[in-house]
Amino acid sequence: MSNINPVKPSNPKKSFEDALSMTAHRVDDCLANLLTTGEGSTDVSTAERVPDRLLQAMRHAVLGGGKRFRPFLVEQSAALFGVAPERALSAGGAVELIHCYSLAHDDLPAMDNDDLRRGQPTVWRAFDDWTAILAGDGLQALAFECLGAERCHPDAGVRAELTVMLARASGGLGMVGGQALDLEAERLGDGQAQTLDTIRHLQSMKTGALIVFSCEAGAVLGGGSSAERAALRSYGEKLGYAFQIADDLLDVEGDAATVGKAVAKDADAGKATLVSLMGLDAARSALTRTRDEAIAALDVFGGRGDMLRQAADFVVDRRR
Amino acid sequence: MSNINPVKPSNPKKSFEDALSMTAHRVDDCLANLLTTGEGSTDVSTAERVPDRLLQAMRHAVLGGGKRFRPFLVEQSAALFGVAPERALSAGGAVELIHCYSLAHDDLPAMDNDDLRRGQPTVWRAFDDWTAILAGDGLQALAFECLGAERCHPDAGVRAELTVMLARASGGLGMVGGQALDLEAERLGDGQAQTLDTIRHLQSMKTGALIVFSCEAGAVLGGGSSAERAALRSYGEKLGYAFQIADDLLDVEGDAATVGKAVAKDADAGKATLVSLMGLDAARSALTRTRDEAIAALDVFGGRGDMLRQAADFVVDRRR
Repeated sequence: MSNINPVKPSNPKKSFEDALSMTAHRVDDCLANLLTTGEGSTDVSTAERVPDRLLQAMRHAVLGGGKRFRPFLVEQSAALFGVAPERALSAGGAVELIHCYSLAHDDLPAMDNDDLRRGQPTVWRAFDDWTAILAGDGLQALAFECLGAERCHPDAGVRAELTVMLARASGGLGMVGGQALDLEAERLGDGQAQTLDTIRHLQSMKTGALIVFSCEAGAVLGGGSSAERAALRSYGEKLGYAFQIADDLLDVEGDAATVGKAVAKDADAGKATLVSLMGLDAARSALTRTRDEAIAALDVFGGRGDMLRQAADFVVDRRR
Repeated sequence: MSNINPVKPSNPKKSFEDALSMTAHRVDDCLANLLTTGEGSTDVSTAERVPDRLLQAMRHAVLGGGKRFRPFLVEQSAALFGVAPERALSAGGAVELIHCYSLAHDDLPAMDNDDLRRGQPTVWRAFDDWTAILAGDGLQALAFECLGAERCHPDAGVRAELTVMLARASGGLGMVGGQALDLEAERLGDGQAQTLDTIRHLQSMKTGALIVFSCEAGAVLGGGSSAERAALRSYGEKLGYAFQIADDLLDVEGDAATVGKAVAKDADAGKATLVSLMGLDAARSALTRTRDEAIAALDVFGGRGDMLRQAADFVVDRRR
């Protein structure tokens, strides 16, 4: 894979999965190194340590597996501009830290009240509520430390730009805002009033914004033109939407096979989904259409965009 | 006050309080502008809005008064280098946003379970737990957006450096780590095992780190030398320690006047304080000695450091 335009491999799906797995290893190593006492920084005096219980909770939140799909998007969009994977690692690690902190907080009893994630006890279950809240808070700070530090990119202008982008994607206008809308619909009883537009808007904030950040971050790291950035933003928006349709379909189809009435269950909970509003068949065709639109957004990159095209297929095909 | 070395006013205390109050007005305006729908950014498309309930909770957390002492320290340390107050506003606003998010989270039932703050219902009381968690999360992101944005400082290297500094001061090695140690001592029952050293360490993380950041940030904004930065760090460390002794004394002496046995109450709760470990008289002399050390750290700045010297007096004298 050292050529800029590699010969198409005989089994592109296998090659995609290998690449995704290599990224996951790199990201796991990077995050494990950050989450040691002293947070891996070289300029730390030995007196400075993250308290042990807090550190263990932060590690639990971050190092429990995960496909590291967002860092993969950062890496692959950066690769379009010739940026080596290692140079995309701080930005990829930062977005993954934000993703992991949001899971630790979303799982809390005060929020979604979840016991398990990826087959493991959630952070508050393994520790307690206050530790899970503080671990999430500490992970958010660490994400911004990653972006600001010199190893992220030699040009401080790039680091500052990524900081603003990630802050906006993860804050009240993005991820946190989407989670607030989602809980509002569920808790304050206006879930039944949701339309396809309001759900799309909510999801574009809650999950879409970090995916768009991940795709655009590569162009920022690699000095892409504004047209290239716009193309990657557009790809990211479509990919995020496809991701959400696939997620909703998976819930329904997964449950339908075992329980037989998952759609009714969602409706009883007062929680509209893309699938409940569109219907199964329309959702399935929206999924493939959106995948095709995501892929079309990459036309400007020619053959260089193949890995991101396969990422769109991966989102559509995912089974967990 | 347009001279660089103003003539000493006849009533320095009055002049200090005026300056603190002017900073508070500037910071209040700045934060109120940030916390509007669209977060006050000029590059926001009209479709982007922070969800209303979340925004109201963020405003409640931030705009309910407060002396804005940390932004004042940023402003006054920046003034040592000729930086105008308006140029220190983004960094000051950022540290205040971090301070306010930490209060919203610390007040939660899962943490300190407080109902009132500054005479108003705490964020979770005025809204609910999940809204308070998300409001805090959104405020942390907004703090880093402030530091990364161009209006913070024209040199992106300064913005990136402040980002790393604030992330470290507020994360697991700083504020969040200190709160974790504090709750651990209280919840996990080893409060009785606290020594003066462990309490000082805990407090230097929990409250000291943001104060040190505030003092050093001014030197970073103003291009101070490393000796000047070290002096401001040292001042900030002493100031933070004095702040904590004064806080503990206030609890005891305030309660002693009305209840008569506040020290016993703290001890019953298993929570050691600087005062319970030192004793009242030793704490009082440690307070004035620490104030004097803070003031001595400013010698390098000559007459320019008067406002920060008065800030040290203010910390010692504060009655609420």
